[in-house]
Amino acid sequence: MHQGVAIVGYGYWGPNLVRNFNQGGRFRPVVVVEANPERLSRALMEYPGIEGARALEEVLGRDDIAAVAIATPVCTHFSLAEAALKAGKHVLVEKPIATTAADAEALVALALGRKRVLAVDHTYVYHPAVQRIRGLIQAGELGRINYVDSTRINLGLFQHDVNVLWDLAVHDVAIINSLIDERPAKVQAVGVAHLSGGIENIGVMMLRYASGLFVHINCSWVSPVKVRHMLIGGDRKMIVYDDLSPREPVKIYDSGVVARTVQERDRLMIDYRVGDVYSPRIEQKEALANCVADFADAIRGQGTPLSSGRFGCDAVRILEAAQASIREGGREMELTWK
Amino acid sequence: MHQGVAIVGYGYWGPNLVRNFNQGGRFRPVVVVEANPERLSRALMEYPGIEGARALEEVLGRDDIAAVAIATPVCTHFSLAEAALKAGKHVLVEKPIATTAADAEALVALALGRKRVLAVDHTYVYHPAVQRIRGLIQAGELGRINYVDSTRINLGLFQHDVNVLWDLAVHDVAIINSLIDERPAKVQAVGVAHLSGGIENIGVMMLRYASGLFVHINCSWVSPVKVRHMLIGGDRKMIVYDDLSPREPVKIYDSGVVARTVQERDRLMIDYRVGDVYSPRIEQKEALANCVADFADAIRGQGTPLSSGRFGCDAVRILEAAQASIREGGREMELTWK
Amino acid sequence: MHQGVAIVGYGYWGPNLVRNFNQGGRFRPVVVVEANPERLSRALMEYPGIEGARALEEVLGRDDIAAVAIATPVCTHFSLAEAALKAGKHVLVEKPIATTAADAEALVALALGRKRVLAVDHTYVYHPAVQRIRGLIQAGELGRINYVDSTRINLGLFQHDVNVLWDLAVHDVAIINSLIDERPAKVQAVGVAHLSGGIENIGVMMLRYASGLFVHINCSWVSPVKVRHMLIGGDRKMIVYDDLSPREPVKIYDSGVVARTVQERDRLMIDYRVGDVYSPRIEQKEALANCVADFADAIRGQGTPLSSGRFGCDAVRILEAAQASIREGGREMELTWK
Amino acid sequence: MHQGVAIVGYGYWGPNLVRNFNQGGRFRPVVVVEANPERLSRALMEYPGIEGARALEEVLGRDDIAAVAIATPVCTHFSLAEAALKAGKHVLVEKPIATTAADAEALVALALGRKRVLAVDHTYVYHPAVQRIRGLIQAGELGRINYVDSTRINLGLFQHDVNVLWDLAVHDVAIINSLIDERPAKVQAVGVAHLSGGIENIGVMMLRYASGLFVHINCSWVSPVKVRHMLIGGDRKMIVYDDLSPREPVKIYDSGVVARTVQERDRLMIDYRVGDVYSPRIEQKEALANCVADFADAIRGQGTPLSSGRFGCDAVRILEAAQASIREGGREMELTWK
Repeated sequence: MHQGVAIVGYGYWGPNLVRNFNQGGRFRPVVVVEANPERLSRALMEYPGIEGARALEEVLGRDDIAAVAIATPVCTHFSLAEAALKAGKHVLVEKPIATTAADAEALVALALGRKRVLAVDHTYVYHPAVQRIRGLIQAGELGRINYVDSTRINLGLFQHDVNVLWDLAVHDVAIINSLIDERPAKVQAVGVAHLSGGIENIGVMMLRYASGLFVHINCSWVSPVKVRHMLIGGDRKMIVYDDLSPREPVKIYDSGVVARTVQERDRLMIDYRVGDVYSPRIEQKEALANCVADFADAIRGQGTPLSSGRFGCDAVRILEAAQASIREGGREMELTWK
Repeated sequence: MHQGVAIVGYGYWGPNLVRNFNQGGRFRPVVVVEANPERLSRALMEYPGIEGARALEEVLGRDDIAAVAIATPVCTHFSLAEAALKAGKHVLVEKPIATTAADAEALVALALGRKRVLAVDHTYVYHPAVQRIRGLIQAGELGRINYVDSTRINLGLFQHDVNVLWDLAVHDVAIINSLIDERPAKVQAVGVAHLSGGIENIGVMMLRYASGLFVHINCSWVSPVKVRHMLIGGDRKMIVYDDLSPREPVKIYDSGVVARTVQERDRLMIDYRVGDVYSPRIEQKEALANCVADFADAIRGQGTPLSSGRFGCDAVRILEAAQASIREGGREMELTWK
Repeated sequence: MHQGVAIVGYGYWGPNLVRNFNQGGRFRPVVVVEANPERLSRALMEYPGIEGARALEEVLGRDDIAAVAIATPVCTHFSLAEAALKAGKHVLVEKPIATTAADAEALVALALGRKRVLAVDHTYVYHPAVQRIRGLIQAGELGRINYVDSTRINLGLFQHDVNVLWDLAVHDVAIINSLIDERPAKVQAVGVAHLSGGIENIGVMMLRYASGLFVHINCSWVSPVKVRHMLIGGDRKMIVYDDLSPREPVKIYDSGVVARTVQERDRLMIDYRVGDVYSPRIEQKEALANCVADFADAIRGQGTPLSSGRFGCDAVRILEAAQASIREGGREMELTWK
Repeated sequence: MHQGVAIVGYGYWGPNLVRNFNQGGRFRPVVVVEANPERLSRALMEYPGIEGARALEEVLGRDDIAAVAIATPVCTHFSLAEAALKAGKHVLVEKPIATTAADAEALVALALGRKRVLAVDHTYVYHPAVQRIRGLIQAGELGRINYVDSTRINLGLFQHDVNVLWDLAVHDVAIINSLIDERPAKVQAVGVAHLSGGIENIGVMMLRYASGLFVHINCSWVSPVKVRHMLIGGDRKMIVYDDLSPREPVKIYDSGVVARTVQERDRLMIDYRVGDVYSPRIEQKEALANCVADFADAIRGQGTPLSSGRFGCDAVRILEAAQASIREGGREMELTWK
């Protein structure tokens, strides 16, 4: 039996959700919930087969709607997700799942109690390149992971309600959490707000893990060049993930540092080796399609979504700690994980 | 009248100094001071016209030696420079000038008292690309400088006595100090040592200035790819300085952010503009030749060297504060400048 | 008064034409002519406001249809364009305008006799980058143009009816014809067909002009990397047009060769100079939108389209000569132009 | 027993030969033959252990000189090599071995008759990247080679006696001859001379082989950008050899075209597949050192040099045919090989 979905919000990201929920036919009916009449009629024109509604309440009581996807402003995520879960719906929320870790935890607990799927749309986690990297790490190709160094900078799109970490570093946090099972023990961040309003447009975030892993994330809305560059350093191999390289987004370097010391002129040094570079072909599939399929599978009882409510909650806890660190001048904030 | 120079140390960098002091003929005689007999004889074979000596003391009393250049391990800089200045010689020291700010200040005071030139070989400061950028900034092309973001990473060459900041970030600190008259009010740094010995092989440094300038420096000895990338963001234009680009090391972006807010779907945003890109031709001159010429000019009474003792002392103060910050978990260290 | 348009063919390129003719509202009604019922219904679903027809004849008699755009297989261009012109319609044909120069000339003559606009959709000619380059050349920035060297290679999309020159070099020919008023006096080409069927998948084309201009075009469907790289060498400046560079598609090099000879070791040589590089910002406008607007302007009596019937005819003559040269082992074919 | 070498000519390339013959100690004594006194004394100063002579005749009678290396202007190669071979010396000549195929053949015959080693310094053939590619081709990794497409363009260094093909395409011809055992059946070339003197500064060369291999070489002295880019297309894999990429000069693409046709909208097409990319680490060894070692091995009776007299003769025959083709407007010149 087909199950229906209601997508709340037809603003910036909603149309992508509607397109992906609509295609493939796994969800029927597809209902767009949008208070703004102009946007709603645009949705209905662009996707002739779908239905429209003005408010979430109109669909919560419908038996043919099993799932709700939420693509509204961040500050509304909690209340909408809570209402949907309480009505017995499965829920997919845009990232971040909520503005506070407490709210996020509450949603996780609610979904658990109601036995409903709660997933968060951290789209990057479903990107074929990230999934390929995860496979390589899990197969032990890189050895022990020593560091991740990410640069995510470009010009523009100042958000009015969240700073550059919540806007950009959230992707790095989710990607790293999906690559590595461990969670950071300490979080530090600094930021700077060059324009009025006090919202940071440059942010630097550093995570330390019990295993020794060190993560550095550099984010900016004021760079003249766009960079999406993540280095992942293992003690066997290293990866460069360049999201802007159309042909070779993932490069595996058979290079590393070895503890043997050598003597060269005045310098004692750690020796290093430089080997081959390998760039696996990355499938061209849309990440959001994978996300929707994962959500659908979970609803049918086939496992937990990769980007589950718990997963989204972890990301919020890290960002919340980073925000607190910025306020305290970059002080190290400790995090404990169950 | 020609004046002689003694170059102390013929290890890693010494040969470059000898080559540059020897050519052009501004210094005669050129004496290499090197305790290791094998290295000394190599020097004499490679440069037939020069003289050799075993220890600095042998040349300090010579009237035909007006200057001493020091290219020995960092821990010996202070004592050798002090001896040379006390003997009335002009001194050029390899960077960093000393291992502590106190030692560096003592050398500056000594040179001042003896009316001798004290210079530090921060070679990058003399690089034609850096000099071109300085000219652009001083002409007001960039407007107010909001941030500098530098990535200086590569594989290898672990130093045995200094960490990655003293080895790599020292270049960024010197470059930035040469571009901007202001000095940082606050210094923060974190580092991580993945190999035994406790010497940091990854380091992140952040500087804050009274003017609002924010500097972020990312250094690593364990990156599979070599990057030498510095972004300089002004409120009028921005520069990308890529030291590894043979043809276009300096690119000027006529891009920026403007405070006018616009409405696009759900987002309020700061507007930005993207304009032309201009890449001035950069002269192919060796930076060290410029450094030696600047030192020679200063000896002849023509101004203070760009990379003076005071300049070198400033760099040491900043690195010392960064080191202290690393020890205290990244705490913000305040610096005051006269 | 609004004038209607009929777009014939809703296959690969037709949807782009419909989208561009439909937006802006300069043409009403918009009718899609498509014999295939499935495609036709798809068109009507995707663009709710448009009309459908099964055959061109259905619309040729309608007074509210002033223009016909033809996006059908190349072999049908002539007969459809001829029918439309004879019915008094303005015509925009996909490139190439026809399969032979004789047919192309016949269409030009017919349009002239009927006083109708005949245009060809050589889309690249309307690309903002190409238009910027044209402006630079016409302003004399490059000086006399000595050569154009274009590489247009990638993997895939073997056409079943035309070879790689008609598929790819056609773009270079149109771009060059739009940049330079002169037409080539001599055409040579060689090609090789590695797969059965005898359709060339690699082609090299060379054009010589009375002015001394030399054009070299290298096309391939079997390259593992995609390259879209055109060098334009003037005696004052040179341009590199890289269609795959999102940020700097047009770079102007203030470099060149000067006749002054110099002596260096054993070599007499022409001296050369290397100067600044300048990359103007290129507008992000869709080329096809410019093409449709140009066609609309011409219909309203505002000038001749940039890519007129005559322009399209010139391209066919050059490609026809290239094809003949391939058959004769690369023999130089002479062309005369009125 | 050590054997001596005389290097004739200490101009542009001679110093590199002296350095490579001098190091390693396989040749003693090393004599530089140079008529110009200034150059000769420079050679003796730069390499203290070597000897000098004014003319080749001075050393031809010496028993301790077993080999002669010739780095003089091209027009003198034949007479100097002939004299050395007649005196019983082994000979290494700079490329090209001679200015005509007849002269080259005469030298090959002479060396054969005297049982002396005759080698040509086609340095690229000894480049580790080229040797790696040869290994891949010989191991069948690429399958059947369908095409080679080389672009070798840059600004400057107009030669006064030879055109751009003899200066630049000579490298491509030698590389391809070293990669593939077959020799071309047909040669075509066109060229253009933009500056006075009639020496072509742009040249395009095309080779056809009995096996179906097609080679295209594009050379220029008047390009604002430097490109050294060679594509090698096999029916199993393809290689891109970029001599200017310091880190990944050789990339192997597991991509190709397959004869299966597919239907997509209006297009019948050959299908293609895009796979992984692999970049083997290339040894950093100097090519010329490999060349000198190969020559030394051949003298000691260990095989024929890779770049033998016969090899050099083949290159001259191809270039000679290209030159003839240029004179005849690009006519196809047939070549037969024994």
